[in-house]
Amino acid sequence: MSRIAYVNGRYVPHRDASVHVEDRGYQFADGVYEVCEVRAGRLIDARLHLDRLDRSLRELRIAPAMSRAALLTVLRETVRRNRVRDGLVYMQVTRGAARRDHAFPAAQTAPALVVTARAADPAQGARLAESGIAVITVPDTRWARVDIKSVSLLPNVLAKQQAKEAGAREAWFVDAAGNVTEGASTNAWIVTSAGALVTRPADSGILRGITRTVLMAVAASEGLRVEERAFSRAEALEAREAFISSASGIVLPVVRIDGQAVGDGKVGPVARRLRTRFHDFAEAGS
Amino acid sequence: MSRIAYVNGRYVPHRDASVHVEDRGYQFADGVYEVCEVRAGRLIDARLHLDRLDRSLRELRIAPAMSRAALLTVLRETVRRNRVRDGLVYMQVTRGAARRDHAFPAAQTAPALVVTARAADPAQGARLAESGIAVITVPDTRWARVDIKSVSLLPNVLAKQQAKEAGAREAWFVDAAGNVTEGASTNAWIVTSAGALVTRPADSGILRGITRTVLMAVAASEGLRVEERAFSRAEALEAREAFISSASGIVLPVVRIDGQAVGDGKVGPVARRLRTRFHDFAEAGS
Repeated sequence: MSRIAYVNGRYVPHRDASVHVEDRGYQFADGVYEVCEVRAGRLIDARLHLDRLDRSLRELRIAPAMSRAALLTVLRETVRRNRVRDGLVYMQVTRGAARRDHAFPAAQTAPALVVTARAADPAQGARLAESGIAVITVPDTRWARVDIKSVSLLPNVLAKQQAKEAGAREAWFVDAAGNVTEGASTNAWIVTSAGALVTRPADSGILRGITRTVLMAVAASEGLRVEERAFSRAEALEAREAFISSASGIVLPVVRIDGQAVGDGKVGPVARRLRTRFHDFAEAGS
Repeated sequence: MSRIAYVNGRYVPHRDASVHVEDRGYQFADGVYEVCEVRAGRLIDARLHLDRLDRSLRELRIAPAMSRAALLTVLRETVRRNRVRDGLVYMQVTRGAARRDHAFPAAQTAPALVVTARAADPAQGARLAESGIAVITVPDTRWARVDIKSVSLLPNVLAKQQAKEAGAREAWFVDAAGNVTEGASTNAWIVTSAGALVTRPADSGILRGITRTVLMAVAASEGLRVEERAFSRAEALEAREAFISSASGIVLPVVRIDGQAVGDGKVGPVARRLRTRFHDFAEAGS
């Protein structure tokens, strides 16, 4: 089956899915995006993803491409046309196409909307969750507004590539104070020797992960104490467990940081439990 | 006459000029660009722009889209087909289109190349040079690798828009130490009361402007002392003159910073002289 993408009002074969060369997403990284899990054909936490999309757009003063109800219909239809049962749906909104000029274009410029969907094998995630993953740490050289989910992802690309070349699956950014901010496409967590879950506050320096938010509720129901505070690379190496969270990976245990074992170097019970229970707390849409 | 763009091997009408939605320039800002002045039908300082393009590509490990000679031919042909006598030619190279994944795609993924050209009225620049322009200052919140001319320009977009809304034409970024780094799309200069030209060193924190480089030679021939060092907003407000440089604007005198007059608030002789003499030193290609 050929893949289908939604682009500015039309469903088109994936190979023909294109945007104008003067789309501001292409020339200025002037756009935002979301990635939402699809599970058994249903969108997971779509409401929270669309809330965050609205916030990103507001922060950049990009008009919504369409109403929330219409966007939800497009997301579902793109998933349906691609026959995705388990996988991801990706949406990107940019400030639209206009003659190149840094400042915002005329107010009537229509934002651009692209939606794609693809299947992912849940068994692959399960395997990674069983083996655990390795991460490396890299200096956080990103811009100040990483709380906005923009397509300004070049430092994330470079960090992820560096991780891959080091045999790791994720790179954790470390700020000037020596504290971990987040992963290149995930949030970062540790479990202290006292059993507390620690993750950085989402006030600034990180993106407020949807999976991260839902995991707070899972943790509460499990009677786990959550400390929203910064933690250093050194503290992570002393931790009992570490893991990352994202819409595409849910929870993936981290068993090595910069080549050094975390805890006993094996997948721990807290990460395993949070992963297992995640979908009891996530919202499965129609 | 309809405009023509070069896109990945073909000259196409501008309205049809498009790239794939999974071009990494669109999803990750994973690409670089150059803007080169066209004057009397000739490319100005093309050699230096292509040198810098090569450096940007090398830093990001993106393969060149074609040989330098071939690219020069495409630039000239795009200018010719658009019948641009005075204006700009824009080129963008990205890491190409591939299934979305932060890490680099397979090595055989072809980089994408887009070239556009457009006319600009030299009289408009001349008018701005006569009146002088206003700039505002904004905190420099950009990522650490602004020495690479990447399309990761979202903070520049926001700064330029803020300038526009304040009735200014440019925004100067100011670092944590209170020093001006550069403009959102220009380099920043001042002339001290002692008559020295001051501009920030291009080691880090700024892009090494081609116009900036050529102006060094102009300044030398004029017997002006150049100090490559950081300067603060306060020093700029005390300066005799201030100006910005770029391939599109050459030299534009700055007569107001954050609403306060620079020097006597009028266009100064140094900026005027540098602007007048610039093209005696720039390299006009065939």
